[in-house]
Parts: sequence; C-alpha cells; structure tokens
Amino acid sequence: MISIPEAQDIVLEHTRPLGAVSVGLAGALGRVLAEEVHAPDSLPPFPASIKDGYAVIAGDGEGEYPVIGESRAGHMDELPVTLGTVAYITTGAPVPPGADAVIQVEDTQALPPGEGEQKRVRICKAAKPGQDIRPVGSDIMQGDTVLTKGDLVGVAEVGILATVGATQLRVFATPKVAVLSTGDEVVDPSTRPLGPGQIRDANRSMLLAAAAKAGCESVDLGVARDTEGHLEGCLQAAIAQGVDVLITSGGVSMGDRDLIKPLLQRQGTVHFGRVRMKPGKPLTFATLDLQEQGGRQMLVFGLPGNPVSSFVCFHLVVLPALRKMAGWAVPGLRRVAARLTADLRLDPERPEYHRCTLQWGPEPPPNTPLAASPPASASASSAAASGPGLAACEWWAVSTGNQISSRLLSARSANALLEIPCASGVLKAGEVVSALLIDDLGGMPVPPGGGPVTPGF
Amino acid sequence: MISIPEAQDIVLEHTRPLGAVSVGLAGALGRVLAEEVHAPDSLPPFPASIKDGYAVIAGDGEGEYPVIGESRAGHMDELPVTLGTVAYITTGAPVPPGADAVIQVEDTQALPPGEGEQKRVRICKAAKPGQDIRPVGSDIMQGDTVLTKGDLVGVAEVGILATVGATQLRVFATPKVAVLSTGDEVVDPSTRPLGPGQIRDANRSMLLAAAAKAGCESVDLGVARDTEGHLEGCLQAAIAQGVDVLITSGGVSMGDRDLIKPLLQRQGTVHFGRVRMKPGKPLTFATLDLQEQGGRQMLVFGLPGNPVSSFVCFHLVVLPALRKMAGWAVPGLRRVAARLTADLRLDPERPEYHRCTLQWGPEPPPNTPLAASPPASASASSAAASGPGLAACEWWAVSTGNQISSRLLSARSANALLEIPCASGVLKAGEVVSALLIDDLGGMPVPPGGGPVTPGF
Ligand SMILES: [Mg+2]
Ligand SMILES: [Mg+2]
Repeated sequence: MISIPEAQDIVLEHTRPLGAVSVGLAGALGRVLAEEVHAPDSLPPFPASIKDGYAVIAGDGEGEYPVIGESRAGHMDELPVTLGTVAYITTGAPVPPGADAVIQVEDTQALPPGEGEQKRVRICKAAKPGQDIRPVGSDIMQGDTVLTKGDLVGVAEVGILATVGATQLRVFATPKVAVLSTGDEVVDPSTRPLGPGQIRDANRSMLLAAAAKAGCESVDLGVARDTEGHLEGCLQAAIAQGVDVLITSGGVSMGDRDLIKPLLQRQGTVHFGRVRMKPGKPLTFATLDLQEQGGRQMLVFGLPGNPVSSFVCFHLVVLPALRKMAGWAVPGLRRVAARLTADLRLDPERPEYHRCTLQWGPEPPPNTPLAASPPASASASSAAASGPGLAACEWWAVSTGNQISSRLLSARSANALLEIPCASGVLKAGEVVSALLIDDLGGMPVPPGGGPVTPGF
Repeated sequence: MISIPEAQDIVLEHTRPLGAVSVGLAGALGRVLAEEVHAPDSLPPFPASIKDGYAVIAGDGEGEYPVIGESRAGHMDELPVTLGTVAYITTGAPVPPGADAVIQVEDTQALPPGEGEQKRVRICKAAKPGQDIRPVGSDIMQGDTVLTKGDLVGVAEVGILATVGATQLRVFATPKVAVLSTGDEVVDPSTRPLGPGQIRDANRSMLLAAAAKAGCESVDLGVARDTEGHLEGCLQAAIAQGVDVLITSGGVSMGDRDLIKPLLQRQGTVHFGRVRMKPGKPLTFATLDLQEQGGRQMLVFGLPGNPVSSFVCFHLVVLPALRKMAGWAVPGLRRVAARLTADLRLDPERPEYHRCTLQWGPEPPPNTPLAASPPASASASSAAASGPGLAACEWWAVSTGNQISSRLLSARSANALLEIPCASGVLKAGEVVSALLIDDLGGMPVPPGGGPVTPGF
C-alpha cells in the first residue's frame, strides 16, 4: 500500500495542464493566465494631478496669480501655464504643459475676479517641483509585464487587466468533471421515507459542489447499480460527454460486487487501488487513453463510498489534480501548523487526516479541554508566556468530534485536515501538528468564541 | 473624520439581513441557512456492517459454519442468523436479525461446499458482540439538528443536507449589487489607443468581480459622466432594477465636479463622507428609503476613484455589509498576526491598510530584507530560537511594494491588509502587526519560495 504523498505524486505525474482558451474579462475571475500580459501604454498616460488645486510653476512661489484655465479629469483647456500664471486642476487630471507642480486647494485662497472677470487665486505655500504630480508611467510603464503566465486572476488582477485594456485573455481551460455514485443501496437524496436497506446519496451532491467550488464545469451521472453493464454504460457516458475527470464513489472495497477497479483495469491503467490512510483506504486512480477521441486522456478517481472518506480523498488527491489541469504551478493544499486543543488518540496502523476547525488567537478557544486545564508541558505554554499579545497568536485545532468515516458531521465546519502520524499512544493537547487547509480561512465566518483579536489601532 | 472601525460599525448598524428564500440543494453552496435542518430518520437507518465479511453470533466463536444467506448493500436475504450459522455481508449492508457481530473476510477462510451445495466458511477469530457494526443512529439520530440557522453551506454541508434528504432549503437571499463608475476621463477597458486625458475604467470590472466573489448577483451600470443629470439617471436605474446595494467609484473628492455626495444628500441620508485611512479618505456611505418601493432600503457606497482605494474600501466596509445581508452573524474580515519582512515607514496622519502577501513558514521568505539580514531584536528571533520546526512557523507579511493609491499592482497577489497604526518613524522588520484576510489563504497558489513546510509524516 502506498502513502498519500506517494499517491499525490503519482496522480500529478499523470496530470497535464489543459490547453489555453480565450475568455473575456468578465469570465476571468478564478482562472489562471496562460500568457504574459503587457501594458500597451503608460499609467498614468500623462502627468496627473494627485490633488484638487492649482497647477503652477514651482519657482513662482507664494503670491496672487491669474487662473488662466482649467484642467479637469476629462476636460482640458489648451492653454499652457506660463510664468506668473496658474491653472485650476482636479484630481487625476493632466497637468498642463509648462506647469511643474500642484498646490492643493487647502493651501490656496480664492480672490475676487480681476480685470475682465479674470479669475484669481492666492497661493499660500510655495511648491517643490514635481509636487503632487504622478509622472507618466509612474504606476505602469508602457510595455511592462503587469501579470504573468501562471497568475491566478483574483479581484485585484481583474482590475489590473482592465487598466491595461486586456479585455480578451488566454487562460488555462478548467476541467470538465463527471460525478457518479454507485451502489444498489444508494437512493436519491429526495427519497422519503427510506426503504429497507436504503441510504441516501450524500457523495454525489457533495462532490458536484466540490467540483463547482474548484471552478470546474460538472456533469451529474446519477447513481450506478452494482452491475458490470450499468457501470460500464456510465463510464461510456462520461467518455461520450468529453469529460476530463470522472469521480466515482463506492464500489472500491473488498466486496465481490465492488466492480470499479476491474472495470478500470479492462478499460485503462490503474495506477493504485489502496492508500495507507485513515479514512479512505480503498482509493483507486486510473487513466484512460481514448484512442477514439484523438488519444485524449481521462482521469478516473474511484473514491470510497463512505462520505467522509470521499470528502477527504477529494481534497487530498483529486483537488490538486483539478488545480494542475487548470494551470496551477503549485497545486497542493497549503500547509500550516496548529496546536491541538484536546488529546488525540493515535492510530498505530495508518496516518490519520483528522478533520478540524482552525481558530486563530492568543489562547485556546473556550470550551476546549486545553482552555479548561492548560497542561504543564513547555510546548503548550508559549501563549501564556508571552501574554495575549499579537505575537502569541497561533492556530488552534478544534476537532470536529467522532472521526468514524461514515459520520459526515465530522466534516461540518472543518477548514483543515490535521496530518496525524501513524503511531501508538496519545498525542497530547498542546502539541503542534501540521494542518492542510481545505477551506477559505478568510471567507468562513468566525465561529462563536473565536472572535478576531483586537485591531492594531 | 471617523475611523474605519467606526465606519464599519455605522455601516453594519444600517445593514439588515435580507429575507429567506428557498433553494434546491444544487444552489445551496456558499449560502447561509435560514432554518434549522433536522434528520427525518436515523443514520445508519439499520445496524450496518463496517466490513466485508460474515455476520455472526459472537458467542459462537471460532469454527466452521454454514453460510445460510447473504446481506449485500441493497439486497438482503430474509433469513435470520441463528446459533451455529453465519451470513455473508458486505460493507454498509444491514446486519441480519439474530447476528450481533461481523467478522472481516480477512479473518475467515472459504471452505468447500457441504451437503446440498451448502456454502461453508471457517471463522478463524472469535468476535466481540457489536464488533464492526454501526448501530442504528450512531452517526445521526432521528430528529437530530444536523445544521443550524446561520451555518454557511460548504462542500461538507451539502453532503450532510443530502444525507438527511434536505433537498429544498430556506437560505438567506444574497444581495443584488449594482456597480457604477464615474468620471468624464474614464473610458471602457476595451479602448485602444487612449485619447488625450483618458484612462481606462479599472474599478467597474474589479468591483463586479468582487461582488461576484462575494456570491452576489450584480448589475453593470457603466460609466456616468460628471453631470448631475447623468448621475441621477444612473441612481434611478439602480433603484428601478431593485438592487440592494449600489457601489459607485469616483466623484467623491474635493473637486467641484464631484457630485456623488450632494446627490445622495438630496435623495437619502449620508452617514459619513470621509474616513481617516490610507488609502481611501473620501469614502461615502448613504442609505435611501424607497417609499415608492414599499419603503425598502438601498445602501449606497461611494468609493474613491483611485483603484487601490476602492479595492481597500470594498473589502473593509462593503464586504462586511454584503455578508451581513447574506446572513453572516459575524461579517467582519478575519484577523491574524503577521511578522514584517521589511521596514515599513509609518504615516503620521492616517492609519494605513498596507497590502501584502502572507506566507507561512518557520523563517522569513527568501528575497525579503529580513531573510537577507535578520535583525538582532528579540522580537524577531522566535523562529531562529526554536529552529525551523512546526511550532516556530508563523505568517510572514511580504509587502506588495509602492503603496500609492493609484498603483493597483500593489494589490496584485495580496491576500491581506496590514493594519498599520498612525505614528511617526519606522516599524522595523521583525515586528508583529495585525492583518485582515482578504483572500482565500487555502485557495491561493503557494508563491515561489513560500512552499509548504514538511508534512507531519
Ligand atoms: Mg457498494
Ligand atoms: Mg471624478
């Protein structure tokens, strides 16, 4: 049996980034750029005022001046500013030729008009040359690379692309994913009441949601009966629909109706079928080379039927593959360290991926054993030693409770998987373990008792 | 001028959660539940086998037994298991009446058939009562509350909802958001080449992306010219389209063509118009009570025109409001602590929200000043003192460079805003500051040099 890191390596070896496609700016969020993006012009494209006020010649200094014109964002008078004159200017507007500084309106005083209704102003404070002017190209120089191949397009990047006029982009395609549940006992979630021996299909809805969250287009293949014929028909349907990835759940354990692995062995190459992990031992990965479709490759992940196992296996093994296909250079889960808030019994046979909710703070969250009775061990005392200051903050791992692989409530509100080594005995509250992030720490509501620490000011 | 925490309080005081709507399970991801969800039946609904093997009476012990039937997931023989008999069983299948334990197939040995082709098996290891059986309701008891009002529906929660047959749900509505840019100098991103004095509209695409990322439906209102009439028409269009929130950018500084605030004062109530912060001082918040629409309320955020200012103001002030409307009980940004990797000049007049990329690790990321020359100060030595172990890991704040508010590249790859207090002098590399998360730390690619630490095993 291989380990999870070995399984991840094998999967990523067999996973290739998809080709590039063109999208408009409105479709770019969450995609990975497949090209460098250059600036066709400088920003600002003209010397631009940082303030509302007056464009002046710095050498003129304090005094009373005629206002010979104005430069507003979008509207400029053609007049140059000459010695002894100034022009009204608004924030972001081009500094008129001749002027070399801007005086903010707060440092000026309006005067009654002069001869011929000529506007006049008092400059109360001399300017330094260049003052409150953004020179041409000070933010972006013409030809600069503003974003590069491999960059994930987030909110700011959308703005950057708009700034440089990149309204059509080459991005990596995102994988099309089919999801199939298997099992004669498995019925649609809408079934009420359940018949004898039936259970509702949690995996399909969950894996479709996971694929959608990963930015994939997905195809719902329903529930396959435990017959070779039906399963094979479902596999052919996935192929016919042109999916890049098929995710099945169930049908991969030791039972004699567990048909997924033999089917994949007949139709493609099975790279592994069991992984040393808790939960989720029976995890199958295969590739199919589709000669009838130009030799394109389809990945198949046969996840265990237990919903927690399939949840954990999706994040550890499938998600990195989806990310790599979508162009991520480093597709693995982000790893942080977290301190246990309760004792944790080790498994002597398999490493465990323990679901937990990470909370940030200077001390153990309330209602955890560690908060109730801080252990005397040195390793747990760092928070106490430094007091509840910013520097003493760390991630606290709050277990989601009973980790049996059928109990999907153990994934409720989980934002991390603790990597618990295979050993005997107990890992004590206060120990630090590594944790793989499986949800958006910034986008999850702060749980009760895990409130933000005091702001810096 | 008020502070950002004061501005946030005022905004949230005037923001109410939207009403509940019904969605199907496929539309539930990312929504907040507006009701408790109960289990209509127990899980498992029957005593279920944890293994493939044989259902036995534990008291029978080791020996050879006739296999009198089988219980497969989805197919059960009706026979009860009686003393001296066993039944074949697969993972997840109901344990037949009479049996009180399961022996995994690895602890058995197939035997040649007996009289009348009766299947037979050798049980090699005695079982304890209850062994490898999940009792009825051991995962979920009938009537249990599996999810509660206020829960954010993530991937696992979709699975939990499917498990209990909750295929129609009451969730909070998500806000409908309109985005409007303003300014005579502002042209569509597709404009090439730029005319004199023109700049491309970065804010509208960026804010539409930000609203989409926050789960909102959005309406693109284009660019308003700097005239009262056009601006008022755009405001009326937002009202007519029934949006809950209008986000404008530009038109809120001191220039005499900055028309947003006077318009909002005429049409509704302006709660604040300037906030003591860097970037983004001119930030306006107003509410409109729409009598002609049953008294419903619309929130209006007048963000500054500089793209960085509008990016920062969106995250600090608008996003918490959108989250509260969508049902989040604690809508603020999550705050962590991070250690500076470079000196940072303080602003004596305004607190600064400094864009940075947080990286996790035991030591400063390479190519940062702190990595090049670790300062002697005690506060920066914790990583070095403990060695590069898990417990020494922390967040390192890598500045995105020049923070001028026109330079949107300062938001590139940023996943946090450092809260830098208003003071004179320099904050030294190695100091710890608070940081507000503005992107998904788990869902951003690990930057080069910021690779994951060694796994726990
Ligand atoms: Mg099955
Ligand atoms: Mg303007």
